[in-house]
Amino acid sequence: MRPQKITISEVGPRDGLQIERRLLPAEQKIALIDRLSATGLTRIEVSAFVHPKVVPQMADAEAVFAGIMRRPGVRYAGLVMNARGAERAVAASVDDIKTGIAVSDSFNELNVRMTTEQGMRALGEIAAVAKGTRSRIVGGIATAFGCPYEGPVPIEQVHRLFAQLAGFGAPVIYLADTTGMANPASITRTIESLRARWPNQPIGLHLHNTRGLGLANALAGLELGVVDFESSIGGLGGCPFAPRAVGNICTEDFVHMAHEMGIGTGVDLDALLRVAAFTQEAVGRPLPGMVMKAGKANERHDKAAPRMKVD
Amino acid sequence: MRPQKITISEVGPRDGLQIERRLLPAEQKIALIDRLSATGLTRIEVSAFVHPKVVPQMADAEAVFAGIMRRPGVRYAGLVMNARGAERAVAASVDDIKTGIAVSDSFNELNVRMTTEQGMRALGEIAAVAKGTRSRIVGGIATAFGCPYEGPVPIEQVHRLFAQLAGFGAPVIYLADTTGMANPASITRTIESLRARWPNQPIGLHLHNTRGLGLANALAGLELGVVDFESSIGGLGGCPFAPRAVGNICTEDFVHMAHEMGIGTGVDLDALLRVAAFTQEAVGRPLPGMVMKAGKANERHDKAAPRMKVD
Repeated sequence: MRPQKITISEVGPRDGLQIERRLLPAEQKIALIDRLSATGLTRIEVSAFVHPKVVPQMADAEAVFAGIMRRPGVRYAGLVMNARGAERAVAASVDDIKTGIAVSDSFNELNVRMTTEQGMRALGEIAAVAKGTRSRIVGGIATAFGCPYEGPVPIEQVHRLFAQLAGFGAPVIYLADTTGMANPASITRTIESLRARWPNQPIGLHLHNTRGLGLANALAGLELGVVDFESSIGGLGGCPFAPRAVGNICTEDFVHMAHEMGIGTGVDLDALLRVAAFTQEAVGRPLPGMVMKAGKANERHDKAAPRMKVD
Repeated sequence: MRPQKITISEVGPRDGLQIERRLLPAEQKIALIDRLSATGLTRIEVSAFVHPKVVPQMADAEAVFAGIMRRPGVRYAGLVMNARGAERAVAASVDDIKTGIAVSDSFNELNVRMTTEQGMRALGEIAAVAKGTRSRIVGGIATAFGCPYEGPVPIEQVHRLFAQLAGFGAPVIYLADTTGMANPASITRTIESLRARWPNQPIGLHLHNTRGLGLANALAGLELGVVDFESSIGGLGGCPFAPRAVGNICTEDFVHMAHEMGIGTGVDLDALLRVAAFTQEAVGRPLPGMVMKAGKANERHDKAAPRMKVD
């Protein structure tokens, strides 16, 4: 079932930067996105069309979309939470309108000030705005593997949201492990449950590495033939509950894992590692990406070079 | 094939501390080991009986063995590389003599100043010293998934070393990913190849997280029914080639993953997290363990507590 090729959607410029302390100017975001698209990545989440007072980091969404180079074959996405956001996204000619909803009321209310029911109505309004435009809807289900307030989530609730997103003809629906609560067993269980009912709906994984399980969870997905994954350059971003914890899985570490396993990504890993270094410089803090610290597994070391003892 | 229960061997006091910059006094090592054995861990690698000039961090091996509490049901191990070390280990009444050899000549020569052939002869001498004593031989094959100097290792060479260690009646032979070059595909390939020839010899995994793949590699092992794993409290230790890179997989993160998956370890995770904090304090630097930063996945957050925005 392990796929031969996967598609990685880079979410660092949105999901990552949204939680970084340092606000980057639009020009620097544009430079980052253009460098990312030059590595062979074909899906990039550029920004979010949300209220600038609520998420000031994304207030320049239009400017960033206007400034980036639109590389052929690359789909540029914007996150949208309501009809107003969808109008802005369509006006900015985004390729993919990323939208979704959290499984739990508690999370939704704190995150977007809507209950899950209100969020589902908002999804309908977003889909109506997008209809007939060049922008397509790509779905996401947040806290799909657990809610930090409510704990385990009922699988029936995941099914309900999935049904609605599938109804919009979403080319892929990402299950998001928003705060890093998934484990390989719950990844397998959830995907198998959804596939039993929607055998033809592509399912993607949006994973966080909050408790070190990110790449193990990705492996569980790969073993089930999942080919769509979201990740963040350098492991940009963080965890809203724990200042020292990390956020999304790291794009270059995941590409490195895939290539080591013989799974193609279409991405130039060396170029990606240079973008990770650029990103680290831009945000001004050490990022959690590990391959940029240790080097690739296929790099040879010089026997004459200094080293420490090891057994 | 996924097991219901696994046995974790804690190697932090040896493999971890050996590469830490701060030298801990024997009393602090003893305190660490006694706290570890109180968590329910039943295998602890205490120290190494190697030349004190070569590895000054382990010069107090006898003192540490003499000082620790011997908790019933716990096996205390010492690393040994030659007959002289085996004599010291037997005199110190170690339960498990951990010994082994690296697959590649380059690595062996730099690490223990022996070729692989010389190392294999040394193994024979170690086994002869241990014979008839209370100390049993536990085997390890270093660089089993790749050598940082020579690259991919021939599987035939892994078979040769495995054959010799199996001949000593080792209750388990650990395949060590000494510098973090393994990936889930190579873990699977190597274990399946060895099992085809030695279907009844238990195989363990000694994993490093150098490139972020530690727990994904552990998952690949679990899927094959591997029940013996080595890890290091807090992710203590490092990488001899990259000062900013990490070393062994982190014990409490791995225990957390196992428990989340419904796999028993016999270890009290909360107690283990307290030992991780104690260890971090002792070595005086932030350790890479992630659960101690983010909290366990099953902890509920307070809705009223401050948080950052996230989607």
